[in-house]
Amino acid sequence: MKSDVANVTLAEIQAPVRRELDSVFDELARVVKADVPLVNDVSEHLLRVKGKLFRPTLLLLSAQAVGQITPKEVTLAAVAELIHISTLLHDDSVDHSPLRRGQPTVNAAFSHEVAVIMGDYLYSRAIEQLVKLKSQESLEIMSRVTNELTIGEMREVVAFDGLDFSESDYESMILAKTASLIAGACELGALAGGEEWRGPLRRFGTNLGAAFQIADDLLDYTATEEATGKPVGQDLREHKVTLPLIVALSRMNPDERRLVDDLMADPSPEDSEIAAVIQVVDARGGIVAARERASEMVQRAETELEAVPVGSARDALSASITYCVERSR
Amino acid sequence: MKSDVANVTLAEIQAPVRRELDSVFDELARVVKADVPLVNDVSEHLLRVKGKLFRPTLLLLSAQAVGQITPKEVTLAAVAELIHISTLLHDDSVDHSPLRRGQPTVNAAFSHEVAVIMGDYLYSRAIEQLVKLKSQESLEIMSRVTNELTIGEMREVVAFDGLDFSESDYESMILAKTASLIAGACELGALAGGEEWRGPLRRFGTNLGAAFQIADDLLDYTATEEATGKPVGQDLREHKVTLPLIVALSRMNPDERRLVDDLMADPSPEDSEIAAVIQVVDARGGIVAARERASEMVQRAETELEAVPVGSARDALSASITYCVERSR
Repeated sequence: MKSDVANVTLAEIQAPVRRELDSVFDELARVVKADVPLVNDVSEHLLRVKGKLFRPTLLLLSAQAVGQITPKEVTLAAVAELIHISTLLHDDSVDHSPLRRGQPTVNAAFSHEVAVIMGDYLYSRAIEQLVKLKSQESLEIMSRVTNELTIGEMREVVAFDGLDFSESDYESMILAKTASLIAGACELGALAGGEEWRGPLRRFGTNLGAAFQIADDLLDYTATEEATGKPVGQDLREHKVTLPLIVALSRMNPDERRLVDDLMADPSPEDSEIAAVIQVVDARGGIVAARERASEMVQRAETELEAVPVGSARDALSASITYCVERSR
Repeated sequence: MKSDVANVTLAEIQAPVRRELDSVFDELARVVKADVPLVNDVSEHLLRVKGKLFRPTLLLLSAQAVGQITPKEVTLAAVAELIHISTLLHDDSVDHSPLRRGQPTVNAAFSHEVAVIMGDYLYSRAIEQLVKLKSQESLEIMSRVTNELTIGEMREVVAFDGLDFSESDYESMILAKTASLIAGACELGALAGGEEWRGPLRRFGTNLGAAFQIADDLLDYTATEEATGKPVGQDLREHKVTLPLIVALSRMNPDERRLVDDLMADPSPEDSEIAAVIQVVDARGGIVAARERASEMVQRAETELEAVPVGSARDALSASITYCVERSR
């Protein structure tokens, strides 16, 4: 297993489970259907843009790697995606984001109120499906994960303007906010094979998810606007503290530190202020250190996969690591 | 069983389960505890004002009426309250309400973002507790109810500015938004006794909850500001269409109808406009008709209770009907 293959495409990763992913789309449409026209309008808006189905992909690949994909796994994959969409709805709603995946958010296209309620609707529908499956293990995994997601979001609230936010705070946050659902998807897939696969695949997902989030946060320091579709330094503009800054902060001299303090004191920092802080973070090794941290997690994810039976599904899981770290979301 | 006893107090209704309700407070504190200081700060803010615990009260009384209250019922009662609180958090958040029960809302005391996330936190914690109980019936009841709640809220969105909102639309809305959780609490309590009590106690709760909501909506037309703590005609001010208006609308002449249309066209109606519409609604029998509808539901709730064994718990459930209809929330 090598993780340094460049330019892995999502289509390649999804190839072993392509047919089942099409069923996930149908399942999503079935699960969200209601007899309230407004609910159906919002669902249609949400499902019109076919998302990447990254969590369903990991769930189905995990199941295929250690067992067989049955209709149950297709439902579980839809549940994982619904929970993901419901967190995005609430994120966009509290951020007042106008766009998501290039489309108007529910927040913008309908209303803030509809976005909050619809998030609750999708989440409760997802739980209802889990209950109908009568799988105590699935319920335990997903009820734990959905609670962790909210804890992660609460930790993230503290990460804004939080210059005392430590590496360990950051790690707790990304484990809860991002890694938990990805790990949960892998663990739900593992249930198709048996108890012994749950640990390795969950830990694979945890490390994959954490690496993914670090890579995503790094983009804010390294990518161009053309590559990400959002302005460079957007996190800094919003006073959001992530790993590169946390590492660099402890190594800064008073003049450098003052640049950061000034930016955090400024409700609408200038591009030049942001560029100056990015430069200091880079000069103090914040970017390199964050890359190393992501690499460690990639290594651990690779190691966990070694326990999983060899095959095209395992290869695709391995390729998903590269995809995550290189492409981000 | 008589429902025309005036001035039933909450303390009287709660007397048969007073000790267990104290345990519910402890259970709530246990369930919401987290290792994130911000989460605990918000929980403390929420639990500082001891709510009426109306849903836990109904759950425990239902259990006592047909069986025995065990620690499981105390946990279920805490779950019902947590789900209620989480819906209030999201309601206040989308309404930007500054006060609830005379205290600043989480929205106002912390932030809009924290209110949305905390609602998700409490809800997912509640589901986690249900999963830990390993009771498939409880999970089926509460996952159905929580989804109905969101459907009710979505139906309510349509009730604003909705002069084509019908009596049947209104009834669907209040059944989902208000009656579902109250019925769910009664049905969860009934599980302590056995399968045969689920139907009668659920239907008791459905009718009680619907009567409660109609009575609450009536207050907007009949009560004084001193009695309710909110301005008279607040629903009309916010263009919210409820039963008295729906009934009266179909009986209005063109001049009267124009008063309503003008109010709905005005983003900030004057007190005099509101008073004029209230007067027309009353003159056209909207208030009387809504009272009659509530009475029918009270009757049905009473009838359902006749199936339940005689005793102090059943008497308290009967008294809760009077309490609901006379006091509102």
